[in-house]
Amino acid sequence: MRIALLGGTGDIGEGLALRFTRDTSHEILIGSRDPEKARDAVADYEAALEDHTDSVDIKGFVNEMAADRADVVVCSVPPYHVGDTVDAVADSLDSDTVLVTPAVGMKGDEDGLHYHPPSAGSVTELVAERAPDEVPVVGAFHNLAAGALADLETELDLDTLVVADDEAARDTVLNLAGELEGLRALAAGPLANAAEVESVTPLVINIAKYNDDMHDVGVKWV
Amino acid sequence: MRIALLGGTGDIGEGLALRFTRDTSHEILIGSRDPEKARDAVADYEAALEDHTDSVDIKGFVNEMAADRADVVVCSVPPYHVGDTVDAVADSLDSDTVLVTPAVGMKGDEDGLHYHPPSAGSVTELVAERAPDEVPVVGAFHNLAAGALADLETELDLDTLVVADDEAARDTVLNLAGELEGLRALAAGPLANAAEVESVTPLVINIAKYNDDMHDVGVKWV
Repeated sequence: MRIALLGGTGDIGEGLALRFTRDTSHEILIGSRDPEKARDAVADYEAALEDHTDSVDIKGFVNEMAADRADVVVCSVPPYHVGDTVDAVADSLDSDTVLVTPAVGMKGDEDGLHYHPPSAGSVTELVAERAPDEVPVVGAFHNLAAGALADLETELDLDTLVVADDEAARDTVLNLAGELEGLRALAAGPLANAAEVESVTPLVINIAKYNDDMHDVGVKWV
Repeated sequence: MRIALLGGTGDIGEGLALRFTRDTSHEILIGSRDPEKARDAVADYEAALEDHTDSVDIKGFVNEMAADRADVVVCSVPPYHVGDTVDAVADSLDSDTVLVTPAVGMKGDEDGLHYHPPSAGSVTELVAERAPDEVPVVGAFHNLAAGALADLETELDLDTLVVADDEAARDTVLNLAGELEGLRALAAGPLANAAEVESVTPLVINIAKYNDDMHDVGVKWV
């Protein structure tokens, strides 16, 4: 399978690129608005993977081209770029492409971070609104600490929640996420349930802030 | 310490009454609008505890009297009764009483449950608004499955998140919750962070709905 990571030079993109490359045989396409930046990131990721796997299959592209070649497109850009990024790659998506969104809207104050969804109800639903109608949208990878994800020395023992209206697309992402070592993927229902899933992200950041030794904390549903 | 469980005949109240009695030496006061109902519940709890501990110290009262005698008052009533219950016991509370709220506002549809906070931002903040100014309010015990909590054969291995603006009251509840076997209490910051904590409750119910063998699922922050 070909997996495009749009904004794949950012922190969540980096972690997913490294772990999908190490733990699976899927082909990884790093997308960026600047293809030169994508290729620089690929060189960094190849270096980081050198001691972890013999087979590295990552390439760098401009976002549109990465999306065009992929079976699964992960829109791993900051929440305020999500809408524009989906618009930019819309012509590269079709009913056979699964569009995955991990972004979360948050607003900070002195107390920590609060959930701050767009008017669509959640960033996941915003992506579904902006994507072409025939493209199945799946929310996943929302609550993973970027630092832990990108550090291959860190053994994960975490869950990720998957929301989708399209069952086949949901199952594709449940299976794909479950291929990452130490990550369990659980279904959380349709896109309408995305807000509660996204809300966990500011919560884990606040838990990290208010407790000792819980930097990069994540979540297990037990 | 004396712990009053207002609405202590309900499902979360039952679980907290049984586990505080089994796991700690605190005195438990079951409150209800109907004192006869409170005393009936006490008889049931005493029977359920018979095989689990020799020292059972539970009494039943009308809510106002339970609150008046307690150091910590847990308002374990359904969310739509929270405001009225706080009003009813307001004269029994003072700056030495810690008022704890575990209730969560939810709204169901065919997809499952969604977080549905009151205009105060969260039920926890609603309690803070309705309580006398000098009474410290703490949010805790939000995300525990009532069934697992009330079944003493179930060994817990769960976390509960504690939010409070008053540090002494927060520490009291962190310590108290941590006395329950298998429960770890973590700080999640001030009351302003309560919405994200409460949002986890509909989420765990949806996770139970959409995954096999996850009835009574709970959460660990790892």
